[in-house]
Amino acid sequence: MALGLARCLPPDDLVICVNTGDDETFHGLHVSPDLDTMMYTLSGLSNQETGWGVAGDTFTALEMLAKFGAETWFNLGDRDLATHIRRTQLLSDGKTLSEVTSELNRSLGVAHHVVPMSDDPVRTILLTDEGELPMQRYFVGRRAEPKVKEVRYLGADTATPAPGLDNAINGAGMLVLCPSNPYLSLGPILALPGVRQRFQAFPGKKVCVSPIVGGDSVIGPAGKIMAELGKQVSCVEVAREYRDICDVFVIDLQDRALAPEIEEMDITPLVTSTIMVTEEDKIALAKEILALAD
Amino acid sequence: MALGLARCLPPDDLVICVNTGDDETFHGLHVSPDLDTMMYTLSGLSNQETGWGVAGDTFTALEMLAKFGAETWFNLGDRDLATHIRRTQLLSDGKTLSEVTSELNRSLGVAHHVVPMSDDPVRTILLTDEGELPMQRYFVGRRAEPKVKEVRYLGADTATPAPGLDNAINGAGMLVLCPSNPYLSLGPILALPGVRQRFQAFPGKKVCVSPIVGGDSVIGPAGKIMAELGKQVSCVEVAREYRDICDVFVIDLQDRALAPEIEEMDITPLVTSTIMVTEEDKIALAKEILALAD
Repeated sequence: MALGLARCLPPDDLVICVNTGDDETFHGLHVSPDLDTMMYTLSGLSNQETGWGVAGDTFTALEMLAKFGAETWFNLGDRDLATHIRRTQLLSDGKTLSEVTSELNRSLGVAHHVVPMSDDPVRTILLTDEGELPMQRYFVGRRAEPKVKEVRYLGADTATPAPGLDNAINGAGMLVLCPSNPYLSLGPILALPGVRQRFQAFPGKKVCVSPIVGGDSVIGPAGKIMAELGKQVSCVEVAREYRDICDVFVIDLQDRALAPEIEEMDITPLVTSTIMVTEEDKIALAKEILALAD
Repeated sequence: MALGLARCLPPDDLVICVNTGDDETFHGLHVSPDLDTMMYTLSGLSNQETGWGVAGDTFTALEMLAKFGAETWFNLGDRDLATHIRRTQLLSDGKTLSEVTSELNRSLGVAHHVVPMSDDPVRTILLTDEGELPMQRYFVGRRAEPKVKEVRYLGADTATPAPGLDNAINGAGMLVLCPSNPYLSLGPILALPGVRQRFQAFPGKKVCVSPIVGGDSVIGPAGKIMAELGKQVSCVEVAREYRDICDVFVIDLQDRALAPEIEEMDITPLVTSTIMVTEEDKIALAKEILALAD
């Protein structure tokens, strides 16, 4: 979705705010999986088969780390490791995560503004039937198999929204909540002090895209988690969660029968094809959304 | 030389003490070039063509670091980077460099004891006609080209010899100074508080091997530096520097004519083949030296 928007808008007309609740320290290095996926996607380096990492990356260093007895369940390619090494060094030099993110993206030729949700650490923790699991341990280490009882955002209540997010809310004409996981990707951002309230008060058009299509999430464990949390796995339920921050809710053609339920919540449904496989799909959806701007 | 000794002695009969004056921070990672060369050599991983790094290593991460604008004049392969990542992590966990060195070596199957000269930071600085240069900047970055006026060991006067070196001096039956660079490799060790004095008082046989053969160093810039410091580039000059800590001085067959000058210093010369190319050469010299033990 973000790639589609980036293809439609000049760099200074788009700010992409990215979840950092997934951030984790591996081998002493600061890894920001969502920021990296965004950077690799926008720079054309991303591995589209796996959905993470750099296309054609090798895993030579990781194999050596395994020889040294390091835990290597989190796959880190050699090119990807360079990103984490550089980020960690720049952070330890005293730069903020926003500054580092901007520098890394520029180095790889990304012209659009990619900003972390906060420069302060926030950690998404899942309370599961296997105990408390940080996001990456749950998602990668345990392949999202444990049953989720609750999701918490450690540190979110004292974290400050990043300057880039702050400026974007003040200056933007439109707000788009991408079809990301409501609990693991958008939840941490909305949990930051004041963000949800400022989204509520945001004067421009607010558009949310449903990550749930036809009774399950298009990718990732959002559907499974909704079910485990006792919620109905439906785009309607997602719309209900975003009710206070949503003018237009985009649902897939498969869910057209649910449009009236969206309307009942005083939200305008937009029924269209939301399954994005090719870059053309992403651009097409982005165009439809941008056409909604006031 | 150390490899030859390791091939001749069971693990508990040999302690190899390694210079850490070359240690440097690259990309925020703690790099110990001499410790690593020793570890890779003893584990059979070393790149024998280059004399540094791991054989067959790739440089994928370094290429990516260059894209991020990092200085990459110091070649770090992907496998090698894993060593530095792991070391840095273990050090930041609070382990000493001795503990980390031991752990890394064990992980790669090195049974012999490899110890850093100190767990405290010591930095070899060369005062040159291009200004002050830390060892790696001089040796790798500037290919040992600047003219050396003086060599200093920053921090050596307050550093404590590592426990492994301490125990070795107390327990060993023989002391061997390998044919390393007197200023850049052995100098930092001898500059540690009390080490030279304890070598002087060491009761067992003390054997030094000349790094200078036929008017130049066999490898590295030792000969060039001697000349720049106004010294005679000769094994005799090296013997003079080690005069107080040397019972037997090993010189090459090419320098047999200089044996009387060694004897005049009350040092026993041992004239033999000291040019080590093959592992057999190293083992042969090690055997000759070990035969000198009391």
